[in-house]
Amino acid sequence: MGVKKKYIYDIRAHDVDFRRRVSLRSLTGLLLLTAGRNADENGFGLLELQTEHYTWVLSRLAVEMERFPTEEDTLSVETWIEHVGMAFTSRNFRMTDGSGTVIGHAASSWAMIDMRTRRSVRLDTIPSMQHFVVPEGTPAGEPVRIGDTEGETANSFTVKYSDIDINGHVNSMNYVQWLSDCFPLDFYRTHHIRRFEINFLKEITCGDSGTVRRRMTAPDDYLFRIETQEKGIACRARILFKEAPQINVAM
Amino acid sequence: MGVKKKYIYDIRAHDVDFRRRVSLRSLTGLLLLTAGRNADENGFGLLELQTEHYTWVLSRLAVEMERFPTEEDTLSVETWIEHVGMAFTSRNFRMTDGSGTVIGHAASSWAMIDMRTRRSVRLDTIPSMQHFVVPEGTPAGEPVRIGDTEGETANSFTVKYSDIDINGHVNSMNYVQWLSDCFPLDFYRTHHIRRFEINFLKEITCGDSGTVRRRMTAPDDYLFRIETQEKGIACRARILFKEAPQINVAM
Repeated sequence: MGVKKKYIYDIRAHDVDFRRRVSLRSLTGLLLLTAGRNADENGFGLLELQTEHYTWVLSRLAVEMERFPTEEDTLSVETWIEHVGMAFTSRNFRMTDGSGTVIGHAASSWAMIDMRTRRSVRLDTIPSMQHFVVPEGTPAGEPVRIGDTEGETANSFTVKYSDIDINGHVNSMNYVQWLSDCFPLDFYRTHHIRRFEINFLKEITCGDSGTVRRRMTAPDDYLFRIETQEKGIACRARILFKEAPQINVAM
Repeated sequence: MGVKKKYIYDIRAHDVDFRRRVSLRSLTGLLLLTAGRNADENGFGLLELQTEHYTWVLSRLAVEMERFPTEEDTLSVETWIEHVGMAFTSRNFRMTDGSGTVIGHAASSWAMIDMRTRRSVRLDTIPSMQHFVVPEGTPAGEPVRIGDTEGETANSFTVKYSDIDINGHVNSMNYVQWLSDCFPLDFYRTHHIRRFEINFLKEITCGDSGTVRRRMTAPDDYLFRIETQEKGIACRARILFKEAPQINVAM
């Protein structure tokens, strides 16, 4: 039986957007950082895996936020593994601010791949993972399969050096940025993100170029599809906003 | 007479590039973070200034690196103000790794602007700044004026939500990313950045689109110009590389 572990982060100036709130991109980065640190401490982190040429890849993520932290906050992220299956393992997160108030939850699903073949590896390769399971869900629910959508082209991109991480593919944070950039500043002045879901379907690599398609399915509820000419549909996502009082910023 | 102050940072997974080295973008972010924290502690940080609607803007930066830290390093940044003039103040940086070895230096020049008029404010508005001066340079030298260059178009961009910071303009880190992305992965496998210089001439704001022009002036020595249709020439820069042994990464 495992235990939950808590990691505390200062919010850095470049983690916040023009509203002085942590961006969804940076929040995702801090969740992934937490996952990496916890896996390292438990003996199945990237440094350990790379001797076997294995690496972790994020398959699905669901985030549900009451409030995004500001630059003055600290963010505490508690994490645990809920379940280890044959192909996927789930990792959950509970986020609290400096005053100890719970501000959000997240749930994620991961696969292990062999970097030489880019194919998945059975998770019973690491039997010790079972020792770290805490069978407890979160209010964010399981990160479910997101349906396909067409919709209008809301953003486009070409993958360059800065987008590529140590796994040789586009870092998950950049997918989140491409999605976030489908909305203008004015929209963000009156909308906060309430829920975010993402499914990663294919790796995107350097030189690929693509588009983000977006469709509104209900007021403030959007489905997305990221597709590249080279790989086809690489990612599906959903962002649910809530309207907020006008945010006054010095602009 | 002031004193130097040291700030210590863990390198986060998303601060490193595909080579497991801190990117120039992230290194610049950590220098700016250090400047902000030191100014806050000394009573002339952004939080203090915003009551007067003033803010700091980076005018010039010069960075000279012996070695870029890796994900396993910590980065210590010592900072001090070298000089306070009427329109500009200089701030210097000395970087050391976890073992205490000096790995680089930087020098920067800053102006204060009124956010309502976007015009500069005389620095004798804050006489206390003089108390923090340590009149000591660095091997990086002063951040000098960079000459104009034409050259071929090596990158292009459109400014979106994620590029904009709390000052309502494109964050300095994004200029650095646009410059860094003028080179392909293969180039970075055999080249490290030895020196980086940047001059910020005009603010770039949301919706602007532009290009990065690049010209090689000597082997491994490049001049850049960032220009937008809306603002004209907004930035000039220089990157000097040194060739390095082939970097083996899992790709």
